[in-house]
This record gives sequence, structure tokens and C-alpha cells, in this order.
Amino acid sequence: MKTTEEAHYLTENIYKNLSSKFNPLTKQVLVNAKSYHKALLATSSAARGYIESIGKLGHDCKTHASSGTEEIGQSIYRVAEAYKEIQIKFEECTKAIFTEVILPLEQKLDTELKACVAEQRKYHQGHKEVTGPYTKAVAALEKFKKKNQSKGIFDAEKEAP
Amino acid sequence: MKTTEEAHYLTENIYKNLSSKFNPLTKQVLVNAKSYHKALLATSSAARGYIESIGKLGHDCKTHASSGTEEIGQSIYRVAEAYKEIQIKFEECTKAIFTEVILPLEQKLDTELKACVAEQRKYHQGHKEVTGPYTKAVAALEKFKKKNQSKGIFDAEKEAP
Repeated sequence: MKTTEEAHYLTENIYKNLSSKFNPLTKQVLVNAKSYHKALLATSSAARGYIESIGKLGHDCKTHASSGTEEIGQSIYRVAEAYKEIQIKFEECTKAIFTEVILPLEQKLDTELKACVAEQRKYHQGHKEVTGPYTKAVAALEKFKKKNQSKGIFDAEKEAP
Repeated sequence: MKTTEEAHYLTENIYKNLSSKFNPLTKQVLVNAKSYHKALLATSSAARGYIESIGKLGHDCKTHASSGTEEIGQSIYRVAEAYKEIQIKFEECTKAIFTEVILPLEQKLDTELKACVAEQRKYHQGHKEVTGPYTKAVAALEKFKKKNQSKGIFDAEKEAP
């Protein structure tokens, strides 16, 4: 019976670990991923404003300036263009965090958490069903042993005189 | 005098362009750079939270899990480590925007704006001083011409009969 108890202890531990550690930690990852994604979106919006203002400055220098300055304007404009390309990559990464991390994690957690609780309940019930008769038998045996022992002493006492 | 007037027109235009276009646009770049920087800082903070939660999950899987799972934990932990390195670069870029864009632009704008206004005032005053006597002389000449003309007509009328 000892190995069965050990197996039960290990199984219990796995469920405990899942519900008290793994699931809350995974939830925390999801919560943090969401706030990270939100911050990235805000950054994207701010970056677009920043790049646009640089582009406007460059465009204005290019068109309204006199000799020499239009070259500086052209360079500023090119900086803005380079920024735009980087920004597109940045926004792709932001989207990826949503589609590759947040969405699957949310769906997974939603189903897994429920399944985990259900599995744990199912296991407990099964364990009870299996060990119930055995525990009963052990208790009955103990009772019987005690009864026999006291009867034995009584018989011995009876036989003694 | 036409070339002088043209030069004056061009100079005026440069000052006008500076005060009505270049300076406000540069100011806009500074304002947008500041809000971009603020958003980047917020993103950094959110990213740190996100990375930390992934690291915790990985660490927990590595230490509390049974066979097989610790390898997944190790991988998750490594993902967090890679994220950390990227985050360090990201924070360096954020710092660079502050030290390479915001600070110099702020100092430059502060001194340049004042200098631009002072220069414009100085130019206007100088221009007035130079053109004042000429404008007066032109007005006096016109007056003299008119006087002479009316006198001439009067004399002609006088001589006519």
C-alpha cells in the first residue's frame, strides 16, 4: 500500500503545484503581457506623432528654405523615412505579442484552468472510490483484531484461575 | 534701390519663415519627442514586469516540476533571459532619445528662439536707420517736384494770356 500512497501524494502534489503555482504564474504572464501590449500601442502612437513632426520639419526645410538648408531638410526628411520603416517593424512586433502570446495564452488558460479543476475533482472522486473499500476493510480488520484481543485476554483471564 | 528692397524682402522672408514655420515645427518635434520618450519609459516598465513574470514561470517550472517539464521551464527561463538582453538595448535607445534629441533640442531652442527674436528686432532697427533718411529724402524730393510742377503750371498759366 505504501507505493499507492506515494503515488497519491505525488499526484496530489502535481495538482497542488498546478493550481497554486503554475496557473497563477501563467495568469500573471498574461496580465503583464496585456499591459506590455497596451504600453507598446501607446508608444507606437507617440512614435507616429514624433516621426510625423520630424517629417514635417524636413519637408518644410526642403521646400521653403534657401540654398544649403534644403539639403539639411532633405536629410531630416530621410531620417523621418528611416524612422517610419523601423516603426513598421516595431508595430509588427507589437501585433505579434498580441497574436502569438496574448490570444493563445488567454484561450489556453480559459480552457486549461477549467479542465485542471475538473480533472482534480475527478481524480479525488476516483481515489475515494478506490481507497474507500480498502479503508473500510482496514477499519473492520482493526476492530476485529481489538475484539479478538480483548476476547483473548478475557479467555486468558478466564482460563488463568 | 530695387535690389536693396529685394534684399530686404528676402531677409524679412527668412525671419518670417523662421518664426512662423521653422521654430514652431522644431518645438513640435521637441514636444512629440518628449511624449515619445515618456511612452518608451512606460513601455520599459511594463516590459520589465512581463519579462519578470516569464522568468518566474520558467524558474518555477525548472525547480518544482517533474521529469520533462523542467526542460520546458529551462527554455522559458532562457526566453526571459533573451528578452532581458533585448530590453537593455531598448532602454539604451530610450536614454539616447533623451540625451541626443530632447536635451540638445531643448537647450538649442531656448537660446535660438530668443536669439532669433533679438536678431529680427536688431535688423528692423538697423533697416529703419538706414532707409529712414532715404525715405525722408524721397518724400522731400516728391514735395519739391510737386511744388515746382504747380509753380510751373501757375507760371505757364500766367504766361498764357
